[in-house]
Amino acid sequence: MGRFAEDQDPLFRRINSSVSFDWRLASFDIEQSKAHARALARLGVLDDDELQQISNGLDSVAAELDGSDFEFREDDEDIHMAIERRLTELIGPLGGKLHTARSRNDQVATDLALLVRAHSARAIALLEALMETLVAQADAHSDWPAPAYTHLQRAQPVYLGHHLLAYFWMFERDARRFFRAAEATTDMPAGSGALAGLNWDVDRDALAADLGFERPQPNSLDAVSNRDFALDYLSAAAICAMHLSRLGGEIVLWSTQEFGFVELPDSFASGSSIMPQKKNPDAAELLRGKAPRVAASFQSLLGTMHALPLAYSKDLQEDKEPLFDATDNLELCLAAATGMLGGIEFNRDRLAAAAEDELLAATDLADALVQHGVPFREAHGLVGGMVRSALDSGRSLSELTDSELDGVPDGARQAVRRALEAGQTIESKLSAGGTASSRVEEQLERAREALSALRP
Amino acid sequence: MGRFAEDQDPLFRRINSSVSFDWRLASFDIEQSKAHARALARLGVLDDDELQQISNGLDSVAAELDGSDFEFREDDEDIHMAIERRLTELIGPLGGKLHTARSRNDQVATDLALLVRAHSARAIALLEALMETLVAQADAHSDWPAPAYTHLQRAQPVYLGHHLLAYFWMFERDARRFFRAAEATTDMPAGSGALAGLNWDVDRDALAADLGFERPQPNSLDAVSNRDFALDYLSAAAICAMHLSRLGGEIVLWSTQEFGFVELPDSFASGSSIMPQKKNPDAAELLRGKAPRVAASFQSLLGTMHALPLAYSKDLQEDKEPLFDATDNLELCLAAATGMLGGIEFNRDRLAAAAEDELLAATDLADALVQHGVPFREAHGLVGGMVRSALDSGRSLSELTDSELDGVPDGARQAVRRALEAGQTIESKLSAGGTASSRVEEQLERAREALSALRP
Amino acid sequence: MGRFAEDQDPLFRRINSSVSFDWRLASFDIEQSKAHARALARLGVLDDDELQQISNGLDSVAAELDGSDFEFREDDEDIHMAIERRLTELIGPLGGKLHTARSRNDQVATDLALLVRAHSARAIALLEALMETLVAQADAHSDWPAPAYTHLQRAQPVYLGHHLLAYFWMFERDARRFFRAAEATTDMPAGSGALAGLNWDVDRDALAADLGFERPQPNSLDAVSNRDFALDYLSAAAICAMHLSRLGGEIVLWSTQEFGFVELPDSFASGSSIMPQKKNPDAAELLRGKAPRVAASFQSLLGTMHALPLAYSKDLQEDKEPLFDATDNLELCLAAATGMLGGIEFNRDRLAAAAEDELLAATDLADALVQHGVPFREAHGLVGGMVRSALDSGRSLSELTDSELDGVPDGARQAVRRALEAGQTIESKLSAGGTASSRVEEQLERAREALSALRP
Amino acid sequence: MGRFAEDQDPLFRRINSSVSFDWRLASFDIEQSKAHARALARLGVLDDDELQQISNGLDSVAAELDGSDFEFREDDEDIHMAIERRLTELIGPLGGKLHTARSRNDQVATDLALLVRAHSARAIALLEALMETLVAQADAHSDWPAPAYTHLQRAQPVYLGHHLLAYFWMFERDARRFFRAAEATTDMPAGSGALAGLNWDVDRDALAADLGFERPQPNSLDAVSNRDFALDYLSAAAICAMHLSRLGGEIVLWSTQEFGFVELPDSFASGSSIMPQKKNPDAAELLRGKAPRVAASFQSLLGTMHALPLAYSKDLQEDKEPLFDATDNLELCLAAATGMLGGIEFNRDRLAAAAEDELLAATDLADALVQHGVPFREAHGLVGGMVRSALDSGRSLSELTDSELDGVPDGARQAVRRALEAGQTIESKLSAGGTASSRVEEQLERAREALSALRP
Repeated sequence: MGRFAEDQDPLFRRINSSVSFDWRLASFDIEQSKAHARALARLGVLDDDELQQISNGLDSVAAELDGSDFEFREDDEDIHMAIERRLTELIGPLGGKLHTARSRNDQVATDLALLVRAHSARAIALLEALMETLVAQADAHSDWPAPAYTHLQRAQPVYLGHHLLAYFWMFERDARRFFRAAEATTDMPAGSGALAGLNWDVDRDALAADLGFERPQPNSLDAVSNRDFALDYLSAAAICAMHLSRLGGEIVLWSTQEFGFVELPDSFASGSSIMPQKKNPDAAELLRGKAPRVAASFQSLLGTMHALPLAYSKDLQEDKEPLFDATDNLELCLAAATGMLGGIEFNRDRLAAAAEDELLAATDLADALVQHGVPFREAHGLVGGMVRSALDSGRSLSELTDSELDGVPDGARQAVRRALEAGQTIESKLSAGGTASSRVEEQLERAREALSALRP
Repeated sequence: MGRFAEDQDPLFRRINSSVSFDWRLASFDIEQSKAHARALARLGVLDDDELQQISNGLDSVAAELDGSDFEFREDDEDIHMAIERRLTELIGPLGGKLHTARSRNDQVATDLALLVRAHSARAIALLEALMETLVAQADAHSDWPAPAYTHLQRAQPVYLGHHLLAYFWMFERDARRFFRAAEATTDMPAGSGALAGLNWDVDRDALAADLGFERPQPNSLDAVSNRDFALDYLSAAAICAMHLSRLGGEIVLWSTQEFGFVELPDSFASGSSIMPQKKNPDAAELLRGKAPRVAASFQSLLGTMHALPLAYSKDLQEDKEPLFDATDNLELCLAAATGMLGGIEFNRDRLAAAAEDELLAATDLADALVQHGVPFREAHGLVGGMVRSALDSGRSLSELTDSELDGVPDGARQAVRRALEAGQTIESKLSAGGTASSRVEEQLERAREALSALRP
Repeated sequence: MGRFAEDQDPLFRRINSSVSFDWRLASFDIEQSKAHARALARLGVLDDDELQQISNGLDSVAAELDGSDFEFREDDEDIHMAIERRLTELIGPLGGKLHTARSRNDQVATDLALLVRAHSARAIALLEALMETLVAQADAHSDWPAPAYTHLQRAQPVYLGHHLLAYFWMFERDARRFFRAAEATTDMPAGSGALAGLNWDVDRDALAADLGFERPQPNSLDAVSNRDFALDYLSAAAICAMHLSRLGGEIVLWSTQEFGFVELPDSFASGSSIMPQKKNPDAAELLRGKAPRVAASFQSLLGTMHALPLAYSKDLQEDKEPLFDATDNLELCLAAATGMLGGIEFNRDRLAAAAEDELLAATDLADALVQHGVPFREAHGLVGGMVRSALDSGRSLSELTDSELDGVPDGARQAVRRALEAGQTIESKLSAGGTASSRVEEQLERAREALSALRP
Repeated sequence: MGRFAEDQDPLFRRINSSVSFDWRLASFDIEQSKAHARALARLGVLDDDELQQISNGLDSVAAELDGSDFEFREDDEDIHMAIERRLTELIGPLGGKLHTARSRNDQVATDLALLVRAHSARAIALLEALMETLVAQADAHSDWPAPAYTHLQRAQPVYLGHHLLAYFWMFERDARRFFRAAEATTDMPAGSGALAGLNWDVDRDALAADLGFERPQPNSLDAVSNRDFALDYLSAAAICAMHLSRLGGEIVLWSTQEFGFVELPDSFASGSSIMPQKKNPDAAELLRGKAPRVAASFQSLLGTMHALPLAYSKDLQEDKEPLFDATDNLELCLAAATGMLGGIEFNRDRLAAAAEDELLAATDLADALVQHGVPFREAHGLVGGMVRSALDSGRSLSELTDSELDGVPDGARQAVRRALEAGQTIESKLSAGGTASSRVEEQLERAREALSALRP
């Protein structure tokens, strides 16, 4: 380095170097460099032969990287320098021309945008598989009664398919969020130089088209200091991971001896080092346990961006590891969730027994009274009294005698008793989006449409 | 409550009650209740006269709330109960009919979605005003040279307008993010009952149209437990607040005696309780200092949702205060940023003096060498050597003698000297999105188009 | 303000003003001001009569504040200014002397340290009450068998008292953490001026003693910009709230119909607006749901401090609301947890039935084999096989025939069968800290000692 | 695994396996296993010869791990299993005896406690080195005038040594915090079994002494599910990293051309890929940029613990990577900060020029008036007026004519003029902890004492 009289301190080198993690940008960097070489050729900076040599050289570097033959050197500060260094070893001083009309600042921002776009697509594909599994399981269990809960207290019965579809819609929103994260990468940083633009009138529209961007980013300062697309990916990932934590948490709950609603496939469970009887829902627990880590990645990058002056600051090197950690963990969780859900077995009897709890019909009793002219609040109070009588005397609601139904208008008694008949409650939830069979069928149809809409 | 034998403990009441903060949902709750009454009338549950009475009654409650005449009672657990209680006082037992075919679970989710939609629109309007101010200031300063920085070291000169527009594009992305937060509220929770749907075939499509939703949420369990729209708002707010922290941070920096690039209006500065000479950029500091608080709101709600079993759990009561805190602070910051930016004065001389630093042309020297056939990496090294010679001898680059330009090809010497002439550097950044005058003009045009695109 | 020509913009005033929340410092501010006046008297700045007038005046202001008679004015920027303004109204220009030899910077840091100290003491007192309740409940249930879980799968039986004491030790650590938060306030900021010290040789040791600090903070720049003590409180609060979330989460779980281990007192439960049968564990859910909010307060303040230049910056105004929100919520949660736990009823039969599950003895079978010379890993495999045989054939372990115990050495069969006898497992956990009766008694003793150690 | 009929799915294996990161526990695991073997010998489970074989075997495994000769297998689920597997390969079935009387649950908690203790000690040692460097630099610059700032506006002059010592005290608090993190590991989890204690009366006191713990953890359920010590480390690390971010941020600021207060050693700076003149303070930026990542680790683990039921859940596997990431980054930052600070050069002239700004004496003018009987608030206003006159007319305060000092009592004029003399202000800050020379000397003394107090 012409400007410096002293060598870098080893400690400085260690904190400054990013090659131990930014090698993950390698394929995107080579893709970008090849397109950049084509742009330089269009500018006349490279002739056809030079372009060919550089392009071939980059392919060789890519092959070395793919085959793990690439040798990193101690003074490879980052993957960009390492690739250029190797290119120059392979094709000679011509390699030095490649950095014409660009800076590491716009180069790294562009690599990262390409990576975010690729991982957004990957998340969508993994979500699609998970959603398909949910639709298949919902379809297969669309008429299995199951208890639904509020406050984790049994509230009303639903069909199991209805419950599973609730997760479908969460993941459908996640997929849309990842589409937006991908959209956040439509503006190309490349061609912004260090921060002020370039001395070369690179055809940025052509370069953008070449690399799959929609347009050049309109401001060079913003281009090199913007990491919003990574934050968009990370907030989508954090919310998606939270949904997975809810799914994982319910599977852990349902796998307990007390609930007993599901049996995990042996292939998605593990034993204990000490207790031979154990079958533990580790994968479900990890769906849960990993979610805060993904949220922390968002928080980490957002914190790093806090109050950062324009344009590029070295702090931005800290954009990568949180992002890579999030992509790794989210993708693993999505795939594991799909695998686990595909092999899960539900216990029809346990679910049905819990769903048949007569107390879950209490709202219907109140509604029956409303149909007979009792204002809802009053009806609610009357049924609350019946519940108390039943609980206090250890009987079910249908075992209460007529005389205990005080306050129930004579004409309504019949309706009250009918509301307690098996299956009544679940089928009476007939509003759109409700759990009545016809509505669940409708919903499955819409879920399939939503799935198709995700596919190009 | 029919089911309970004992009164609630005062401590329980304190932790359980939400009326001290959810009164902020009041106007949305009344709007929803009036639409719900119309839906009940369509169902035949209310006749025309009853509908009118309820509607009028709700209007009276709204008027009391607006006029601060509304008297809360100690046992008003939440705003929904308080409004219904007051309605019943005003119109008698008929008030009790209003809660037919709904639950607090779908009611509160719907209120919150309406609130998020309203605050998303508010954020967009405030961003628009801020963006207009930025365009106006950028336009007025489109030809003022200013230093731009990487690593907070002077890097290259840009026009001040170019720098200001960098913020414009950040806020433009924020506005798009708030549009998406609003879009996240297109599915209506109402009509989902407690979690399973309703015993009444409410026309949810009509209700959705009445309340400005696009469609009913397709799954009742998801509807009552979903808070994604609030998270979408909060992640947009967190990212926007981070952008404001960068703007605030730069204004603090530029206001220092050392930079001296801006003078804040007296109306946006404060003094010291002890040091009479001080003029402090408090508002800019608060743009910065408040950003982590908005980020914390996102983290808080996401943490509350972590692993929460379906469907509604009381934990969801904790969705409100972080959201309200974020809307309050973000909206205040956006308005204050606009006010402060509108009155800020830039110091042309200080900016120009810093921008004229010859070292900022170093890249252009290297590029000039490249134009004369020197590979970029080699050119970079040559110029680095010149910089070192200049710094070591306390001279500027143009004061170096020809003999000190070793390595510079004879034909390139002229070009090198020309690159050091005043104004050369800034106008040479002519790539699209760069800082050359023509490009800044182009960018201003695009910024104005982007602004128009935000307006309906 | 002498230095300023223009009035403050209303927006500026809104963002800059803190009186809407920093009134909570009032009592600490007055306490400090009275001590400061005494310090000024020691310095000779105030004579005895002036000291008396100021001190009486401050008492009058305090009385107005306590009685809610204090009238805030629109231009009261913060509580410090409001108090001084009111003091001057009451006692005339002499009030203006009080701000001699101090700055708002050291004043506000001192107020906040006093507040953190007071709330640390409050948290310890509330923890003590909670720990007493846990000891009482543990004592009352020290011989009730209950299932303990890993991975939420039944693992081994323990006594319920043992399980409850696990929480005792969490809260004991929390209490120690709050002692350390209080210790973090031993250095007094007061006497540091704006940032450089004072022109007056205030006897800071005497002032520190007067206000209950151990010593003056040794560096004036650090003194006005340090908020570590608030962070220490907040990290203690965040960890304590996490412990409460675990307790709350388990009570929610144990209250389910499926577990059925506890019945909450009616006074700590609520009903549903729509489902008359519901008894919801709202307080337990809120212990859980509020924890991330306390964690977010830590994150918020830490984020605000990020990269803040020395010494005081206005960003520090954002130290207060996250702290106040955390103290409010944590104190409410601790009190509610104590109230709820005090009235909870455990269901002996349900707990015992779950604890008697023979599979929970599997580890003991393996240990019995080890006692007969089988290496542990092999024993673990043998018992795993028995578990599988039992599960596959729908029998309990004790129903397996001798011929099915393949691999079990003849001499060990007896021991294996004995290990399955009721009560064997739980009493066999006899290592220190284990669940055997004698160990639980020992532990209760230690818990009582730990409680006494908390008291002065 | 006896209990399972099917193999684990590769995806399950991937999400479940921790060996790719928990190998970092290896040395602690072997240390613990050797102590556990001794405990088993004391119990009579192992005879002397067996103990010797196991101990030697473990030493061999350790040697393989140290020498990177250890071969991991695909089914090595975690480091504990890998070590035991290898031990058994080396010494035969006897290796299987080692897991007698322990569980992975107490084993992993103990390993992690040992690791936290070791890294707490490491942090303290690194802090000590940093504090020494600060003392040395403060000593060397104890009489260099420098401007100090509030709101990043020049406020009052201080000696540079005083400013540097402000950081000393931050790090001194950090060191104390890490001592507490180490103290949080005084209770030994080992000997708690899976969660209920052991069937073997292991002498836990002896084991604790052997491993350097103070006592056995008193409750076995708490022991296996407690990660407070990791949280204590992480909150200490997060606060320490925040302090480093402030230091890094100031160095970035001071390195600007505008401030020009410091020159970084070439060995702690880097150049630009495109701009040959650049010398960037990358290490300082990374001190800043890495802080939010450490904070995120705290948040991540705290989030994972949220509402986790007792006792061990697989979620706890997520305790490791955030912790390892934090130790790596914090330790690197502490070492880099020390290296960078050691070589930094301050620019005496630039600092002095900024410190001599007469406006920085404004408070002293006010104080001089107070000494002549003007109440402070009034004096503040008078001086504010002078500042305004000076600024408006482009003069310094000492250039104001007597007639412009309106309101200044005749007797005070002299004192006012004297307060403006060079060096007056800085030496007048004579209160304890202030910046007057004698106070800075005192402070250096105390800093040295505090440093000695850190050493055993």
